[in-house]
Amino acid sequence: MGELIFIGLGLYDEKDISLKGLEDAKRCDYLFAEFYTSKLTGTDISKVEKILGKKIKVLERKEVEDGEQILKEAEKGRVGFLTAGDPMAATTHVELRIRAEERGIATRIVHGSSVFTAIPALLGLQHYKFGRTTSLVYPEDKFFPTSPYYVIKENKERGLHTLVLLDIDAEKERFMTIREGIDILLEMENRLKEGVISDDTIVCGVARAGSKKPIIKAGSILEVRDFDFGPPLHTLVVVGKLHFMERKALETFADLARENRSV
Amino acid sequence: MGELIFIGLGLYDEKDISLKGLEDAKRCDYLFAEFYTSKLTGTDISKVEKILGKKIKVLERKEVEDGEQILKEAEKGRVGFLTAGDPMAATTHVELRIRAEERGIATRIVHGSSVFTAIPALLGLQHYKFGRTTSLVYPEDKFFPTSPYYVIKENKERGLHTLVLLDIDAEKERFMTIREGIDILLEMENRLKEGVISDDTIVCGVARAGSKKPIIKAGSILEVRDFDFGPPLHTLVVVGKLHFMERKALETFADLARENRSV
Repeated sequence: MGELIFIGLGLYDEKDISLKGLEDAKRCDYLFAEFYTSKLTGTDISKVEKILGKKIKVLERKEVEDGEQILKEAEKGRVGFLTAGDPMAATTHVELRIRAEERGIATRIVHGSSVFTAIPALLGLQHYKFGRTTSLVYPEDKFFPTSPYYVIKENKERGLHTLVLLDIDAEKERFMTIREGIDILLEMENRLKEGVISDDTIVCGVARAGSKKPIIKAGSILEVRDFDFGPPLHTLVVVGKLHFMERKALETFADLARENRSV
Repeated sequence: MGELIFIGLGLYDEKDISLKGLEDAKRCDYLFAEFYTSKLTGTDISKVEKILGKKIKVLERKEVEDGEQILKEAEKGRVGFLTAGDPMAATTHVELRIRAEERGIATRIVHGSSVFTAIPALLGLQHYKFGRTTSLVYPEDKFFPTSPYYVIKENKERGLHTLVLLDIDAEKERFMTIREGIDILLEMENRLKEGVISDDTIVCGVARAGSKKPIIKAGSILEVRDFDFGPPLHTLVVVGKLHFMERKALETFADLARENRSV
């Protein structure tokens, strides 16, 4: 029987893969990838193929959900399934791994760097000061989910920061910007009026985490909304209570104004 | 002026560094490392040196806190500071980075894989179902901190999982085991009696995340306590409310008994 190896490509470009991931990918008979749950914006598929020395078949959402192509190849040989970040962030990946095991295919994970730890690291915010993570999706006609508002509320009540992941619509090559994300948060406040987001709420924006020059800015929500972060990917953090060293880090690395004492 | 690059070595051995990290380390004039906040248990310093093609000066806690050696070298040339995981998890690292910037030394982070995402990935638990992280330290004479108990309580009340990091005492080569961690949790319950931990609380243990054969086991707290996980590093998760797919993942990958329906 074969093997299915979930290989994390990390954050930004083709050089974020680990040496272990590179070795494993080179030893695979067949490589698949998906870039609809996250994307390496600092590279393209041909550069990833070049570094791995192998062709990669990029799958659409439907094909990963169906999973048959991947599982059939993995029954015959050693298959690598490449994703940005640390693998298994999507339920579909977990489901695929369960199905593989049920068919007697051995599975393994090769970890990669991830936005979950890169964002706190870049901002100098402590991991254990983060509550649960939330994500914002592009609102559609009558679909305007407000659960992120309550996640932020719950975290803030405990003094915790909230990592806010921004939507990716890979098929439309649409990546939610920090500005769009903030507009959604402001609209949530406007509708729900529980005082979670106010004009002086401190947020941090990070663009292109993992690149050599990520852009980072902390400030009031309106200040950050109007800041030019450049191209995707963008990530947002709503700040809870700041420890002295966290405040100093935001002042040093994210240009937080010293007079901004609202948290 | 020089440069100080914080390079994450990832989880387990010398091959968990990214290609980017490897390139940057090779280009450094001087390499420092610390292994007291976390450790790569699947390798040793000579193997890391071999892969980077350079000598590494491993610093003790005091030396990193003092920081002068690192900053003086970084004022003169390009210095790499190596740590396990994704860098900046410790406040000392953040402080060092702030001090470097204040002296006009450019700083940069090269991310690595981290226990914060590897543990959810290995267990098939969803990131956004985790509340804040906590860590257990070795109790000393009259020092028995109980804050982790309340973090777990708070998370459980919201149906969230808790990542419980276990203590590392590098100087004594002492790494807290899952069994020791569970004994501390049981003692906390014994003292505080708020019903957070009971005999049928479901927990998951993971040993040697990042290695090719991590050992994973989920079950009641007493069942996991008596399971043989082998050598360090160990990590613990106290499970909140399980989504259908999470339960299936724990049954498939962590040998959770199907009859265990208590969460």
